[in-house]
Amino acid sequence: MSFGHIPGVPVGTRFADRTALRAAGVHRPPQAGICGTAAGGAESVLLAGGYVDDLDLGDMVLYTGAGGRDPSSKRQTANQSLNGPNLALATSQRLGVPVRVVRLVGERPDRVFRYDGLYRVADYFPAVGKDRFRIWRFRLERAAEVVYEAPAAPLLVAEPPGLFDVSVGGEAPRRSVSTVSRVIRDTAVTREVKRLHALRCQMCGERVETPTGPYAEAAHVWPLGRPHDGPDVLANVLCLCPTHHAALDLYGVGIADDLSLVGVPGRLRTAKGHDVGAVYLRYRRTLFEAAQDEAADAARRAA
Amino acid sequence: MSFGHIPGVPVGTRFADRTALRAAGVHRPPQAGICGTAAGGAESVLLAGGYVDDLDLGDMVLYTGAGGRDPSSKRQTANQSLNGPNLALATSQRLGVPVRVVRLVGERPDRVFRYDGLYRVADYFPAVGKDRFRIWRFRLERAAEVVYEAPAAPLLVAEPPGLFDVSVGGEAPRRSVSTVSRVIRDTAVTREVKRLHALRCQMCGERVETPTGPYAEAAHVWPLGRPHDGPDVLANVLCLCPTHHAALDLYGVGIADDLSLVGVPGRLRTAKGHDVGAVYLRYRRTLFEAAQDEAADAARRAA
Repeated sequence: MSFGHIPGVPVGTRFADRTALRAAGVHRPPQAGICGTAAGGAESVLLAGGYVDDLDLGDMVLYTGAGGRDPSSKRQTANQSLNGPNLALATSQRLGVPVRVVRLVGERPDRVFRYDGLYRVADYFPAVGKDRFRIWRFRLERAAEVVYEAPAAPLLVAEPPGLFDVSVGGEAPRRSVSTVSRVIRDTAVTREVKRLHALRCQMCGERVETPTGPYAEAAHVWPLGRPHDGPDVLANVLCLCPTHHAALDLYGVGIADDLSLVGVPGRLRTAKGHDVGAVYLRYRRTLFEAAQDEAADAARRAA
Repeated sequence: MSFGHIPGVPVGTRFADRTALRAAGVHRPPQAGICGTAAGGAESVLLAGGYVDDLDLGDMVLYTGAGGRDPSSKRQTANQSLNGPNLALATSQRLGVPVRVVRLVGERPDRVFRYDGLYRVADYFPAVGKDRFRIWRFRLERAAEVVYEAPAAPLLVAEPPGLFDVSVGGEAPRRSVSTVSRVIRDTAVTREVKRLHALRCQMCGERVETPTGPYAEAAHVWPLGRPHDGPDVLANVLCLCPTHHAALDLYGVGIADDLSLVGVPGRLRTAKGHDVGAVYLRYRRTLFEAAQDEAADAARRAA
């Protein structure tokens, strides 16, 4: 397994064919679009226009998982599962592993493969594709890098000076700055939900205490990002601690219509003036249940 | 209090003087550089070159807090405290409130004030300034917005179709995409620390269970970002749950040299092959203790 950039292969490098891609170690499988393992994550993906549900906006890609496709017509003819290479992409999100993206560019007979750099898997979710079969979609976001040199020593040091050896900072060689896309939330909505719950998590009742006051996060039930396009309204947000925010986003916890939690004990806490919309809970639950069903299938296959 | 963009004032709008800035509601105080309250956060800051320790890189600003400055020489002549307007900026980070940034641009006699849009407070920390007094620094990062229209209805809907009314998605009018800068971590280091701890939090022993496996985060003890420039090595990272990661970054928990936790009960869990460097713990503790000392001072003043 080899994650990240391949030394000596700058972004934009072109390859005549898959044999050349494989020889360079940029994308190793002879045919598959996803290279990786369920345990370690995906190393690289190939965007070759083969899936009718792919959406490539450059910095953001909605990438269709593997499987269920007829090789000659290139249409979906069966449901996809969240295993094998698809599970590898989900693991990349979970472990925060960057994925190399390779695109097939140009027109025949001048088509080449171009290495387009590192993307992160920002999200994954089930959907019904254009051919009416279930697909798994992965939102890839470009990690655009701006490399700058770290200073030899910090310009300013935290006091008291002399307590530590600042030369240790010199171990850090070069820094990269990445650019990620995220939907800006309506701060009036997020401030209000935190106020109504006194910054306590609606799942566990805890809050993070800091020297300047308590901290909590606002989480959208029907996700805000593309292609979900959920609304940024009070009835679609929850006040959560960072851990339960991650658990919600990663399908680790669901919420039933009666507000009992699914997958963990307890019930969603309520506050006067904050009613969560049932339609938003149901949208989220379709995502949660599909991911949980796949995990149950995988466990049955393994048993 | 008015957060976010002022309607009718696009980014780049120029103002002849502070009276005009005030009349437009962009930056309301007649003299102060920071507009806001400790409880609600900062609405706006003015970058006028008045502080010797300010560093303005455009998309990222290291902004010096208010206080301790001689008005005629513009040098620091006393320590700054984390209260009043400085606490307002810390609150902006804690509550996720965006801050309007106004810059004084051009040369005399053509100097004007320019509205430069929304920034987020990414971090705050104590430092010893050029004049050898304690200052509080705030890292502001530009929230560059690319507005696009949301589709009238999702192109693809999560299955099963018909379970919910997709027209509800139409409530979301327009989306913004923000750009933030962050240091890319060495994924080999973060993967290793998660592996060594089996993705369990070194503070609470918990981990987030998801359908594709457990989730945890890697947190740097000596922070990676500017101006700290801590090293991205195994001895400088911890495996934490999202909540304890936030608590560490927001100075809600400290770690003593014997690995006992400060501010919460317990002790940092260890794993064979993962020794946390004492110099990194000490660097982090200088930040933690300064923030905690300020909170204690504020409590004494209030009592």
